[in-house]
Amino acid sequence: MRAGPSQEEIRRQNLGALLRYVHVHGATARSELTTMLRLNRSTIGALTADLAAAGLVGEGLPNQTGRAGRPSLVVRPESERVYAYALSIEVDRLLAARVGLGGRILDQRQADRPRGSAPGDAVAPLAAFVKEMHHAVPPGSRYVGAGVAVCGLVRRADGMVLLTPGGGWVDRPLGAALAAELDGDGTITVGNAADVAALAEYTRGAAAGCENFIYLYGDVGIGAGILAGGRRVTGHGGYGGEVGHMVVHPGGWPCGCGSRGCWETEIGEYGLLQATGRQGGSGREAVLAVLDAAARGDAQAQTGVRHVGDWLGFGVANLVNIFNPEMVIFGGTLRDVYLAAAAQVRSRLNSMALPACREHVRLRTPGLGDDAPLLGAAELAFEQFLADPLASEGEPAA
Amino acid sequence: MRAGPSQEEIRRQNLGALLRYVHVHGATARSELTTMLRLNRSTIGALTADLAAAGLVGEGLPNQTGRAGRPSLVVRPESERVYAYALSIEVDRLLAARVGLGGRILDQRQADRPRGSAPGDAVAPLAAFVKEMHHAVPPGSRYVGAGVAVCGLVRRADGMVLLTPGGGWVDRPLGAALAAELDGDGTITVGNAADVAALAEYTRGAAAGCENFIYLYGDVGIGAGILAGGRRVTGHGGYGGEVGHMVVHPGGWPCGCGSRGCWETEIGEYGLLQATGRQGGSGREAVLAVLDAAARGDAQAQTGVRHVGDWLGFGVANLVNIFNPEMVIFGGTLRDVYLAAAAQVRSRLNSMALPACREHVRLRTPGLGDDAPLLGAAELAFEQFLADPLASEGEPAA
Repeated sequence: MRAGPSQEEIRRQNLGALLRYVHVHGATARSELTTMLRLNRSTIGALTADLAAAGLVGEGLPNQTGRAGRPSLVVRPESERVYAYALSIEVDRLLAARVGLGGRILDQRQADRPRGSAPGDAVAPLAAFVKEMHHAVPPGSRYVGAGVAVCGLVRRADGMVLLTPGGGWVDRPLGAALAAELDGDGTITVGNAADVAALAEYTRGAAAGCENFIYLYGDVGIGAGILAGGRRVTGHGGYGGEVGHMVVHPGGWPCGCGSRGCWETEIGEYGLLQATGRQGGSGREAVLAVLDAAARGDAQAQTGVRHVGDWLGFGVANLVNIFNPEMVIFGGTLRDVYLAAAAQVRSRLNSMALPACREHVRLRTPGLGDDAPLLGAAELAFEQFLADPLASEGEPAA
Repeated sequence: MRAGPSQEEIRRQNLGALLRYVHVHGATARSELTTMLRLNRSTIGALTADLAAAGLVGEGLPNQTGRAGRPSLVVRPESERVYAYALSIEVDRLLAARVGLGGRILDQRQADRPRGSAPGDAVAPLAAFVKEMHHAVPPGSRYVGAGVAVCGLVRRADGMVLLTPGGGWVDRPLGAALAAELDGDGTITVGNAADVAALAEYTRGAAAGCENFIYLYGDVGIGAGILAGGRRVTGHGGYGGEVGHMVVHPGGWPCGCGSRGCWETEIGEYGLLQATGRQGGSGREAVLAVLDAAARGDAQAQTGVRHVGDWLGFGVANLVNIFNPEMVIFGGTLRDVYLAAAAQVRSRLNSMALPACREHVRLRTPGLGDDAPLLGAAELAFEQFLADPLASEGEPAA
């Protein structure tokens, strides 16, 4: 219902569009920007000058050109100077990175995380990582914000983490807790790991150019980041995508959520280890050990992996009927399960999904591997910044 | 990635925004338009003048005012002069209406439809209705397009209907077939009944102002129209929302789609009649007869209705975990099932959906009753027109 934008809003929109283009595509010739953004040459020139004056882009000759004649100048994101902090709270590890405009990881830290610890317990070590990395930031650099990926239910309004696979709850918003620790300016955005991994795969991974796809992320539980029509499906409070709690097996195993037969009881880490007779183990390594045993001919492991692949395909077929996506990406432990049981997944999809709904769907592994949640956390920060890149100068985070 | 709009695009956007506002809200004071569209008074005046010159709005004094002083002029949609044709192909009936800007039904026709007939068979009777209504159109009226709601899978690109509850397929796009019959200008948009019913409820029904909701529509089968973040979730090819083929009961009843245990085998018309021991009947009246028997104390009917309500809640809980909606609307036969078994639905929702995902969800019956698909079909036509209302003068449809 909103009416059209003002001249100043248009200029900001154009600045954001240009900067986003080079953030996603890297160094880009002015001539390509003119075509892709449907703006004339002088407008592109003026916008580039504004962004360069703010230290957000640089201009120069392209690295190489196959053509004769004067080459078009390229516009490059200032990846070394303009950066965000990205943090990822995963089931078994904590990650922190300084990520430059353009998505380049400039610095990185990692630590193991005790299973079942509360998200709040991650605040101090992550803050320590950020402070450490901050000492190494070159003078004249510009901080634009921070993003956090967390395996748990995240309330969009304030980044409160409600529920995690370890069962812990926190009593205050994670973003605020981190901001307090970092003495930062509060531009810390928190998102669910699967949601932000989907954002990363959409920006510069397997789903680039896909407007309708589902990124399934598996660890102890199962979550999904879903894009429909190029927009993230986050739901009213930000909790959308809890596909792991879709009940597929009435009367099945009890789930940590209080229900029974949830999809993640069949295809999560516990379900896989249970199905293959490895109840004792846990963690990504235990999952990989089972898949390895199956690959080497262990009959019990093979039967179990096929069983889990069957349930994986079952749920995927349901989601394909609901969303009619172009692509389903299997991330986290589901990447390995999918690769080991692709035949079962495809068979279920073919027998359970409507032909029209599955017609164009491609099944894929992540383009960004296990870094997707971390890179997505950086995109959360860049997303806000790119909406209005000249709005204000960022404050240092630490 | 698209850059900001040009001056002319902004003007069109503003014209569309103003006209859409009065289309949705009816006669509106200029002062309210100024506030709601965030444009200044002179811009509102100029836009109104342009729209009035094109015969799309009229201006006048408000019908009544409780305040002293000179009242602000109101801008009214020209509902008698500017119209769309709306057609609805439902399982048991065909509906056609002439709908004025603002959503007012100006003329209407209805016929029974034999069950299981192909969508193509509906073309001739619907075209006859349109021609009939067209004779009564006052001189000087303006046709803006036609929309069709159809209970079946609809390909977005061309309006091809792929699959209907009767099982029929058509060999050419329904929109093109209707356009050929009507000698019209081809502005016929086809949509799935649940999708367009959701659009109607969002525009002027129970879901007005709700950005995240699910409209469940039941007849022989079950479909959903889903809005996420204010956008319809239609999927890659337009087939999204086939929630009736979400498998909830592995090894359950065989479904017409070739799978087993689909949600609609439990809660569709057939499932309800089966569960209540009324295998012989069919149609809305048979469903209402069962619910009536349950209300009057028939034990077998009561047990069956509770059983169906339980499965209805089961699937709703899954969808709530996936979409975290603000509202679920029960339309078609599901309206009556929900009203008869609300306790079962709520009980399942409370035991199966995550507290965060169901926290703010409201369960509702449609605001527009059984007219939602028909009114939604009109909105499909208006949606296109309102995107650029002064683009061109419409051609008569027949």
